[in-house]
Amino acid sequence: MTSTDPAGGQRAATIATIASEVGVSVATVSKVLNGRADVADETRARVEASLERHRYRRRSRRTNEPSNQVHLVFHEFDSAWAMEIIRGVEEAVTAAGIELVLTQLGGVHRPQDTWLDLIVGRRPLGVLLVQCGLAEAQQEKLRRQRVPFVAVDTDSATPAAVPTVGSNNWNGGLIAARHLLELGHRRIAVIAGPEDLLCSRARLAGFSSAHDEAGLTMDLGLVRHGNFYLDAGYRHGMELLQLPDPPTAIFAGSDAQAMGVLRAARQLGLRLPDDLSVVGYDNLPVAAWMEPALTTVHQPLHDMAATATRMLLDLAAGADVPTKRIDLGTELVVRESTAPPKPGP
Amino acid sequence: MTSTDPAGGQRAATIATIASEVGVSVATVSKVLNGRADVADETRARVEASLERHRYRRRSRRTNEPSNQVHLVFHEFDSAWAMEIIRGVEEAVTAAGIELVLTQLGGVHRPQDTWLDLIVGRRPLGVLLVQCGLAEAQQEKLRRQRVPFVAVDTDSATPAAVPTVGSNNWNGGLIAARHLLELGHRRIAVIAGPEDLLCSRARLAGFSSAHDEAGLTMDLGLVRHGNFYLDAGYRHGMELLQLPDPPTAIFAGSDAQAMGVLRAARQLGLRLPDDLSVVGYDNLPVAAWMEPALTTVHQPLHDMAATATRMLLDLAAGADVPTKRIDLGTELVVRESTAPPKPGP
Repeated sequence: MTSTDPAGGQRAATIATIASEVGVSVATVSKVLNGRADVADETRARVEASLERHRYRRRSRRTNEPSNQVHLVFHEFDSAWAMEIIRGVEEAVTAAGIELVLTQLGGVHRPQDTWLDLIVGRRPLGVLLVQCGLAEAQQEKLRRQRVPFVAVDTDSATPAAVPTVGSNNWNGGLIAARHLLELGHRRIAVIAGPEDLLCSRARLAGFSSAHDEAGLTMDLGLVRHGNFYLDAGYRHGMELLQLPDPPTAIFAGSDAQAMGVLRAARQLGLRLPDDLSVVGYDNLPVAAWMEPALTTVHQPLHDMAATATRMLLDLAAGADVPTKRIDLGTELVVRESTAPPKPGP
Repeated sequence: MTSTDPAGGQRAATIATIASEVGVSVATVSKVLNGRADVADETRARVEASLERHRYRRRSRRTNEPSNQVHLVFHEFDSAWAMEIIRGVEEAVTAAGIELVLTQLGGVHRPQDTWLDLIVGRRPLGVLLVQCGLAEAQQEKLRRQRVPFVAVDTDSATPAAVPTVGSNNWNGGLIAARHLLELGHRRIAVIAGPEDLLCSRARLAGFSSAHDEAGLTMDLGLVRHGNFYLDAGYRHGMELLQLPDPPTAIFAGSDAQAMGVLRAARQLGLRLPDDLSVVGYDNLPVAAWMEPALTTVHQPLHDMAATATRMLLDLAAGADVPTKRIDLGTELVVRESTAPPKPGP
C-alpha cells in the first residue's frame, strides 16, 4: 500500500505507518478503511485524521471486489421531477448491466457520516448525488476509498472539485425572455425560484440579458421569489395579476409554479393565452397535459442524470474524465400558453 | 441440509443426493443454488429439475449472510404513479435501515431467468414486484433460495400463492358511482381501464353495484375502455360528450384519463362542474392541482407499497404472515369537479 502526496515530497504511508502513528493495530486501521462499524468513534476519528494527514490512498482500486451497484442519493424525492432523474439513471445503469440503489436523505442536504460509512462498506461502484452535497472530509473519505462520485446539479451550486452534470440555466432564462419579447410583451413578470439558489440567479441573469440584447430594461419591480411548487405560483400570480398595471406575461420558475399561475389566472377570469402568456420551466410530462398546454423551458433532467451516470461509470472504470463540469443545453418548447399581448387600450 | 415435502412422506434430499442423482459434483449443485453463472445451461437445467423434484429447501435461511437490500422490480416506471410506490417502499426500508435496489423491466411483464439468477446471487433480503409476475418455476427458485417476494398488486391479477398487497378496486367503483348518483346524475359514462385487466372489471362491477343499490340500471352503452393515459381520456371524452344525449358525468379510470376528459370538455366549451362532473381515480398529487381540482378515488399506492415492504421484511425475518392477500381501502376525495347536474330542459 502506498500513498502519494499530490504536492510531492511526502513519504508514502502504509497501513502499518498509520497504525503505529495512531497507536492502534493494523486491523483497526483496516476496519476504518473498510467503513466497519465496530471501531470506537474516538479511535476512528484519530485514524481518519492520520489517513488524511498522510493523504493515504489504497494502491489497488480496492482490496475486495467492488459491488455491481451505483448509489443514487436524493436530498428528497417527491415529484415527477425526481422521476425524470431516476429514469435517466436507471436507463444508463441498466445499459451497463449495473444495479441502482436508491436513497433519499429525508430533506437533509448533507448525508450523515454514519450513512456514508455504511455506503463505503458496501463498496459501491460509485455514488450519484442529487441536490445534496458532501462535506470536504466526506469527499476525501470517498476519494481515499476510491469510490467515485458525481453530482447531478440542478442549482449550479456544486463545488468545482466535484464532477458535475448540470444544465444551462442562464440560457433557460434568456430563451424564455426572448420568446416573450419577440411576441411583443413588454410588461413581463418573473416568479423565480428561491433567491438563495444560484440557478434562480442564473435564469434571472439570462432573462435580463435578453432584455439588454433587445435594447430594453427588465422591470425589477415585477420579479418575485418563491419555492418551486404550485402554491408559490398561485400566490405570486394572484398578487401580480391584481396590480394596477398587471403584467401581460409571466415566466415561472417551474412547471408546477406555472400551474399555480394558471389557477390564479382562471380564478380572476383571465383567458390564456389571450389575456396572459405563461412560460414554465422544466418541461415535465405534465406540461403537455395542462390546459392550455404549457410553453416551457426544457431542463433535460433525464439526460443530465444519464450523462452523470455514464461519467460515474467511466470514473469507476478508471477512465480519465477530461471535463469536471458539463452543462447540457436548455431549449424552449413552444405550446399553447403564449401569444402576442392584446393591443393596449 | 434437509428438505421437506409439504405433502409429507418424501425423504429429505441433500446437496449430495442431488449431485449423485444428476451425476455432477456437489460444487456444481452449490453453484446452481447460489445463482452462479459458471454452470452450463444444460447442467443447470438438470440440477434445477432435480432440486424441484425433491422440493429441495436450504435448511438454514442461507449459507452466506443475506445482503441488507430489498429489490423493487417495476414492469415499467414512467409516471407520478410509480413515484408514489417508490416513495412508499423507500420510507419503509429506510425506517428498517435497509437499502432499496430499483429495477425496471423495460415494459416486459415477466423478468428473464438470467436476471433472476443475478438477483438471487446477490442474496437480497427480498423482492417486491410491481405490475410484473414470476413464472411458477421462478417462484419456486426464489422459494428454494429462501428469498421472499411480495407483489404490490394494482390490477388484482396476482396468483393466490404470492403474498400480495392491493387495494379494493370494487369499492373504488362503488363509491365513485354512489357520489354521482347522490348528486342526482343519471346518465353517467365510465372510461374504464383496459378491458383485460381485472382491476377495470372490479371497478366497473362496483360501479354497477351502486346502481343496483339505488334501484337503478347502469347504462352499458356509456362504458368505454382505454389505457390509463391522457390520450384515452381525451379521445373517449370527445366522443361521449358529442353524443346526441351526452352524459352529465364521467368516471375516468385514472387521474391522467380525467385530465384528458377535462381537455375535451374545455375544447367543447363545457364548464366544469356546471355542465359536466368528472371523477378520477388514483388521487395522485396532480389531482389537487387540476383546474377544477379533481374529485377522485384515492388508491393508496404509497401505503400499499409501504405495507408490502413491511410484509416482505417480516417474511425475510422468518415471521409468519397470517394473510397472504391484503387489500387496502379506497376512499373518495371530493374536490371541485363534481356537482349536481343542470336541471333538464
